[in-house]
Amino acid sequence: MVAQLISGNEISKEVNERVSQQIKSARETHPNFEAALAIVQVGDRSDSTVYINAKIKRASDVGVNSKLHKLPSTITQEELEKKIDELNDDDEVDGILVQLPLDCVNPVDTDAIIDRIKHDVDGLTRENAGRLLRGELSNTIFPCTPYGCLHLVQRATGDPHFVAGKHVVVLGRSKIVGAPAAQLFLWHHATVTVCHSKTQKIEEHCDWIKPGAVVIDCGINVEPIEQADGTTKNKLYGDVDFEAAKQVASFITPVPGGVGPMTVAMLIQNTVYQAIRRRIGHHHKHNQNSN
Amino acid sequence: MVAQLISGNEISKEVNERVSQQIKSARETHPNFEAALAIVQVGDRSDSTVYINAKIKRASDVGVNSKLHKLPSTITQEELEKKIDELNDDDEVDGILVQLPLDCVNPVDTDAIIDRIKHDVDGLTRENAGRLLRGELSNTIFPCTPYGCLHLVQRATGDPHFVAGKHVVVLGRSKIVGAPAAQLFLWHHATVTVCHSKTQKIEEHCDWIKPGAVVIDCGINVEPIEQADGTTKNKLYGDVDFEAAKQVASFITPVPGGVGPMTVAMLIQNTVYQAIRRRIGHHHKHNQNSN
Repeated sequence: MVAQLISGNEISKEVNERVSQQIKSARETHPNFEAALAIVQVGDRSDSTVYINAKIKRASDVGVNSKLHKLPSTITQEELEKKIDELNDDDEVDGILVQLPLDCVNPVDTDAIIDRIKHDVDGLTRENAGRLLRGELSNTIFPCTPYGCLHLVQRATGDPHFVAGKHVVVLGRSKIVGAPAAQLFLWHHATVTVCHSKTQKIEEHCDWIKPGAVVIDCGINVEPIEQADGTTKNKLYGDVDFEAAKQVASFITPVPGGVGPMTVAMLIQNTVYQAIRRRIGHHHKHNQNSN
Repeated sequence: MVAQLISGNEISKEVNERVSQQIKSARETHPNFEAALAIVQVGDRSDSTVYINAKIKRASDVGVNSKLHKLPSTITQEELEKKIDELNDDDEVDGILVQLPLDCVNPVDTDAIIDRIKHDVDGLTRENAGRLLRGELSNTIFPCTPYGCLHLVQRATGDPHFVAGKHVVVLGRSKIVGAPAAQLFLWHHATVTVCHSKTQKIEEHCDWIKPGAVVIDCGINVEPIEQADGTTKNKLYGDVDFEAAKQVASFITPVPGGVGPMTVAMLIQNTVYQAIRRRIGHHHKHNQNSN
């Protein structure tokens, strides 16, 4: 048996369509409804630019307004905080995303910058992290990549409760992916093991992939391949040994076309969720008060 | 080989002595230094009263002022919030502890009450939970029971880095013990598995205790035993099958006298930590500003 491929491209398209539909529905009752995403880029990392362009394109496809705020790598903590405050106070902004890592020449406390964001759509503020640790799943903005992983498993298996009671092994404990993914799976009732650089005998935890396992690859590696004409082309691949893993897994995500497009789709979904909550929730209350 | 007993009584005594010493040291430079703990009890649960009395006694032994604010079970959310605000604003209060569970006749949102606390010494606010999930260990108030468990392992094995790289299995995912314990062990570099009521094949994760494992029992069960004279006496025991487990474990905590006294010791330690940070940190800054 060879693993079934989980298409992040297709599943993210479904998410995008649903979100686009949400915007249309919102406009039926609130014709001026808009959802706006502010993207902050500090410096000029080319990989960040690629990711940001994908986000802007997807936002536009779905009907979300996005604006890129490009700031110089010479920015100071104070200046960057001022920028965040400005966006926090802008009533037209529903979601603020600071592209990480910051490309700064000055020392800037990334966590402090993230925590300053009022309309978090990346799910990375301490507030959202605390909600996740305490298992408060409603009104919580889930971090985009873990949320995308969960959604891939649910859609691929056709079972929204697939992870409940199952053993989920998370490799890596980063603040952005591993640590919140573990919590998200835990509160969806999985038994969760987190392995990382300090883990001993890692093969005992992930069995180098148990037969029938669902494999979600969040890795992204870039290798420049020299072409016949002397130019180079970038080859993208994940962290999993795809060819070997697909011989034992039941489902597996490819890279590219797996987790990547899901992260973007979840970001846009979070933005529209915030916009509806903020604009229609508010409007609705306003109506109630004036009646 | 029979497991070595981990004495929470003895290890908590060490913690208490160290904390008592910290107070004395603080008074060498700040003769008026005090540490004050406000304990809020809503209603009249007898088990809560037992725990609170233990906290008050320990505080007094160590040299921490404590005051019990006993509130009627008929209190409303609003009234309770007002009480928390009052304590938040009281400059003499270094730590606020709301004894859980609340014994209320009215519906009260426990999480909202906890999050209102400014000087959290139980480590349960969303702010502290978020810090823990993101692995921000400095300036974070660790939840008392998980912190006590970690300390028991470190002291019993004589190795502050004992859990690093080891496999820690946490049974239970409560907000107060299981979920934060998993994070605390994770960020002390353990490979962590969290099992809970929805876990399937739990024996595969904890092997019904692997030979040589360190066993920390956070359970507390009370059984009334009828005496010859017709009165009843309460027998306390943990969640672990102690007699069987000690045949395979390397270290094991008893109940009572294991985790229980550690929880109280860590609470008092957190209170003194907050008092030093708040009173001496503040004083120190004040001095700097006035020079």
